[in-house]
Amino acid sequence: MRAAYHEKLSSLNDELAQMSLLAGEAMKKATSALLDGDLDLAEEVISSDTEIDALRTSAEDQAFGLLALQAPVAGDLRSVIAAIHSAGDLERMGDLALHVAKAARRRHPELVLPQEVAPYFAEMGRVALDLAQDARRVILDRDVELAFTMESDDDAMDDLHRHLFTVMMTKDWPHGVAPAVDVTLLGRFYERFADHAVAVARRVVFMVTGKMPDPPLA
Amino acid sequence: MRAAYHEKLSSLNDELAQMSLLAGEAMKKATSALLDGDLDLAEEVISSDTEIDALRTSAEDQAFGLLALQAPVAGDLRSVIAAIHSAGDLERMGDLALHVAKAARRRHPELVLPQEVAPYFAEMGRVALDLAQDARRVILDRDVELAFTMESDDDAMDDLHRHLFTVMMTKDWPHGVAPAVDVTLLGRFYERFADHAVAVARRVVFMVTGKMPDPPLA
Repeated sequence: MRAAYHEKLSSLNDELAQMSLLAGEAMKKATSALLDGDLDLAEEVISSDTEIDALRTSAEDQAFGLLALQAPVAGDLRSVIAAIHSAGDLERMGDLALHVAKAARRRHPELVLPQEVAPYFAEMGRVALDLAQDARRVILDRDVELAFTMESDDDAMDDLHRHLFTVMMTKDWPHGVAPAVDVTLLGRFYERFADHAVAVARRVVFMVTGKMPDPPLA
Repeated sequence: MRAAYHEKLSSLNDELAQMSLLAGEAMKKATSALLDGDLDLAEEVISSDTEIDALRTSAEDQAFGLLALQAPVAGDLRSVIAAIHSAGDLERMGDLALHVAKAARRRHPELVLPQEVAPYFAEMGRVALDLAQDARRVILDRDVELAFTMESDDDAMDDLHRHLFTVMMTKDWPHGVAPAVDVTLLGRFYERFADHAVAVARRVVFMVTGKMPDPPLA
């Protein structure tokens, strides 16, 4: 019974890991689409979001089955609840990549980003991909140390996000309001993507250690 | 056993209803703080967010206890899982009200909002409060009809959000980039608040009918 249980839990975790992989890839491609005005890549991200959504539904169904048929307790129960939360966070990461891709498509063939903020987004895209890849490893390996290192990537994302505002608020921002609105929303999407990746990792830490790490999710 | 179970589930739902009440009140006060530059009110919202956070922790603990001790199946299990999700959405609604209050505090004694967008935020605040109050009733009464009417309030919020952008993008927006960045983020907070309220209601519909209503959560 417990062997069957752990096999099922492991298969659920594999789905979550796959969701991390897809969310990271989606944000990577969305960032390229944004930076290069690549419509095909944007469309690819937009059409593949259903795959992440389907994995979320499947993960929730698996979690439901585990709870209904196996009635886990203690640590096993905590794992299933963490998986339910993580599936939600990972789906949301996919949605945020989708929002970035849609912004790239909406302005095509124009570029969304004024030149001076493009490097910030290249870097935010890199950090986002790192965080999604780390979340995947944390899910698969229950790696608490790696989960803690993600906090500093999240801080790096917050710094990039703050710098973006500084760039826009300087008196010599020549692009006017419309690009500032786009940059504001896009910056927010990357920042939230990072928050959700960190939330996934924190749930794993909670599962392994029984304690929720500080600081709480912003 | 089942009577005890339903009593506990009902107490869990009462906590969720209380979270809706507090999140709605928080957004109402945050909106006043924003519109009137009322620092005391902003501080009140900021310091009371811990109350919503504590209720979320308590709701998750109760849900964990129900799953561990009663091993519910079928509809009863679905109710507990819905409660876990809803607690997350409701806590997030509190966070979004907190973000609005912090924006009001950050610019004090200046007003954050240029005069021509203030009425939009007054209206978004009203819709947000309505949605939180409706979510509370849906939680308490399992009212599927009321849940469906929330979709149109959510559409109203989306329309207000879009109009905000139109106002900022017109050529005669005289306020420059900094207020546009504030307005963009604040608009997003209200829009997400509405999304989470609707997500709570949709979970109740799913629980009652076994079907997730369309359209899917944005």
